[in-house]
Amino acid sequence: MLKKPDLDCFFQPQSIAVIGVPSKIPKKNWPGIYGCLLAYGYPGRLYPINPKAKEIAGNKAYPDLSSLPEPVDLVILSIPAEAVPAALRECARTGNRNVHIFTAGFKETGEPAGIRLQNDIQKIADDNNLQVIGPNCMGLYVPKSRIATWVKPPDAIGRVAFLSQSGGHAQDFTNYGARLGLGFSKVVSYGNALTLDAGDFLRYLAEDPDTDIIAMYLEGVADGRRLLEIVREVNQFKPVVILKAGLTESGTRAVASHTGSMAGQTHIWDAFFKQSGAIPAQSLQEMANTVLALQHIVSVQGPGVAVLGVGGGVGVEAADACSRAELSLPDLPESTQHKLRQFVAPAGNMIKNPVDAFVVLLDLRLLAKTLDIISSETCFDMIIISLHLDWIYDIDEGLHIQELANFLATSARRELKGKPFAVCWRTTRLVPEIKEQGLLFEETLLKANVPVYRELAQTANALSSILKYHLLKKQLRN
Amino acid sequence: MLKKPDLDCFFQPQSIAVIGVPSKIPKKNWPGIYGCLLAYGYPGRLYPINPKAKEIAGNKAYPDLSSLPEPVDLVILSIPAEAVPAALRECARTGNRNVHIFTAGFKETGEPAGIRLQNDIQKIADDNNLQVIGPNCMGLYVPKSRIATWVKPPDAIGRVAFLSQSGGHAQDFTNYGARLGLGFSKVVSYGNALTLDAGDFLRYLAEDPDTDIIAMYLEGVADGRRLLEIVREVNQFKPVVILKAGLTESGTRAVASHTGSMAGQTHIWDAFFKQSGAIPAQSLQEMANTVLALQHIVSVQGPGVAVLGVGGGVGVEAADACSRAELSLPDLPESTQHKLRQFVAPAGNMIKNPVDAFVVLLDLRLLAKTLDIISSETCFDMIIISLHLDWIYDIDEGLHIQELANFLATSARRELKGKPFAVCWRTTRLVPEIKEQGLLFEETLLKANVPVYRELAQTANALSSILKYHLLKKQLRN
Repeated sequence: MLKKPDLDCFFQPQSIAVIGVPSKIPKKNWPGIYGCLLAYGYPGRLYPINPKAKEIAGNKAYPDLSSLPEPVDLVILSIPAEAVPAALRECARTGNRNVHIFTAGFKETGEPAGIRLQNDIQKIADDNNLQVIGPNCMGLYVPKSRIATWVKPPDAIGRVAFLSQSGGHAQDFTNYGARLGLGFSKVVSYGNALTLDAGDFLRYLAEDPDTDIIAMYLEGVADGRRLLEIVREVNQFKPVVILKAGLTESGTRAVASHTGSMAGQTHIWDAFFKQSGAIPAQSLQEMANTVLALQHIVSVQGPGVAVLGVGGGVGVEAADACSRAELSLPDLPESTQHKLRQFVAPAGNMIKNPVDAFVVLLDLRLLAKTLDIISSETCFDMIIISLHLDWIYDIDEGLHIQELANFLATSARRELKGKPFAVCWRTTRLVPEIKEQGLLFEETLLKANVPVYRELAQTANALSSILKYHLLKKQLRN
Repeated sequence: MLKKPDLDCFFQPQSIAVIGVPSKIPKKNWPGIYGCLLAYGYPGRLYPINPKAKEIAGNKAYPDLSSLPEPVDLVILSIPAEAVPAALRECARTGNRNVHIFTAGFKETGEPAGIRLQNDIQKIADDNNLQVIGPNCMGLYVPKSRIATWVKPPDAIGRVAFLSQSGGHAQDFTNYGARLGLGFSKVVSYGNALTLDAGDFLRYLAEDPDTDIIAMYLEGVADGRRLLEIVREVNQFKPVVILKAGLTESGTRAVASHTGSMAGQTHIWDAFFKQSGAIPAQSLQEMANTVLALQHIVSVQGPGVAVLGVGGGVGVEAADACSRAELSLPDLPESTQHKLRQFVAPAGNMIKNPVDAFVVLLDLRLLAKTLDIISSETCFDMIIISLHLDWIYDIDEGLHIQELANFLATSARRELKGKPFAVCWRTTRLVPEIKEQGLLFEETLLKANVPVYRELAQTANALSSILKYHLLKKQLRN
């Protein structure tokens, strides 16, 4: 693999200058990049640049880069598009090599003026060996360095990185992640990818000791062959999950209009996934769900799933969801069904697989016994536990829901003898107390590193993604 | 079409007897069928039957059907499976023809005892011309008659009927519906379908003046050809939306285990949908979303969608979602783009379609103007308005969100000149206030009969379902 690119200045900058800071930071509405950095508590040396201001938010303002006491690790441009070429030249002249261009209005407009401007800045950047994130992008979110160029990102530091060609998606994905207890190491919204593209960030993240899992939102890429090679290599030791947008006729045109990218054709990207081993995702939520499973489940050995839960219709839904995700639900062997029949009556219960037996969920000893029996079967590679909280709530107004959470967060692992499992819960009744109990239940499981979902299709897809990842990785290694 | 079956006794019973009522109604946990009827306030004559009790919940208890002062409109059996044949014989003997068998433990167990019992009760029902809902099912929910055989169903009366082979799904679907402001006319969970099957209920609903739209959860059906003919006819004047479960290998086996049904093969059901014109749904949520669109949108003329909203990545997602749902996003004609360029700057905005222009959402006059301009284009058959509330919230902490809601609930229709539209909103930031504003926003729109969703794929799928319904209906009529 190529040498790790020199991007430390972006992710751990000791000093940042922001060009184009308003004299007064708006209290409402968007506070601007400088305001975001202040609000998130960036601890380094932060220089606002505005030739018309002496002081901004109580800090000394500077008229330009050359008046700064030092060349900075990172310059952020938040100025009109027409002013960007001159600002980039000033960066080059003053020895400021690392630039994030927040400004939009370039190639993505599809209009002659914007395309010409992008060609201009491309030349300036190339001639002067500048490293540029953007233009037309939100930029950076690195909780460990307390850097965020958008409003109110989550505080949690974690081991997931996210590369995104959409700033909105960078915000949404990190928020979805936070709900699932995922924290982030480094997040980059890089828009039109003038000099730094997905591949460069990937090579950096490959050797980043703070990153274990890499998620990407891709609209297009200039050099697909190069990206394929990088992903294939990185994916062998850090799973790469990619949401590739624009793979439909309307999507392709929207991508051109958003980041001026060529989306590429479906069959090319199908081959990309097959040859790189990257995990495809169809939506941000699906990507977050997959990352959650990757974070908590080391490996899955095969496609056999046992589903344990309550509700006949829900059981059928689980079976269909698993089949659609290319997992299988082998019938419980007859001898095992006999064991379950000792404490599960035939009427109103299914015990073939799915095992739908309310009695088992009501008594933790029976649940432990059932998990032990099921997980002893070699035909099962993983277990899905599906809980309808509306029905469990009625027993004792939520006490048992929390007992189940504590059991699943602790002793369940022992009964399952280390077999991977995921939990899926639902409540549909319009009773706020049940939803609250559900959120508590979810929190307990997430804190115990148990992947927990709210839809069976999501659960099956996440488990299936892990299985496919391991199978394909093995195949590509050979 | 065959004569409307005589099912009024089930849906508007003047009297109900419940056999198998415990002497004491449990306060916690499931209160039983009799407890559910009491709790939901069934206003008719309600007779609890229990030979060991004199009084139950303050009401006179009866030892058996023959001691009742009258033959009742509906008998509900909630007794062990082995006791069901004798009870059915008693029904026949005492002139009680309409029976709901709640009890499980029949054919669906797949075990010899259960199969034998089902054969027994089949013979008794057939010989005595009994009309049976069930066995192995939750039964009835008819808000207008204040009948509910499960816990805490929604109060709202509406014009949607639901037929379900799963009692859990009957509860979940009506709860999903309630969230979307949908009310129900008649809901039946009919389990193993001993004598009354989907087709019988459908024929009844076809002529039911309280029902406009029919949703169904089907696991299997004894006579598929007959159901096809009924659905095809009903669907011409009342749309029928069907979630067909068990169309996967594992799902087929789960269906057998749940209701003892034959799920049937995928290609047969594909043909069923094509020949009947019924609208397929992949999940309960999708079915509820489709019903919402059917309730509020009279017709869609073609596949052209204009998407107006905010966020580049979100716009790409909308385009991909529409394409996947077989809708198209034609580019705005150049002349129209020029009109928009009068008040939308090129930088940071897309105006081709999706139209992503924050400025337009911030000013209701500009929004009205934009909707007027867009809806004048003949290439657009419908409009999706996509709002990221996280960003709109920041302007003024939610005030503008509610202004947008009021505009979309009232004047938007005029600007759109009657073209169908749907709204999709999201919030991902972990700020409870934004979610609250979103729920208020949603409520305002639903009250004004605007279909509103939280995911773009759901929005596109619902609109696409309406279009396909109308196209296929027309084709089948010719």
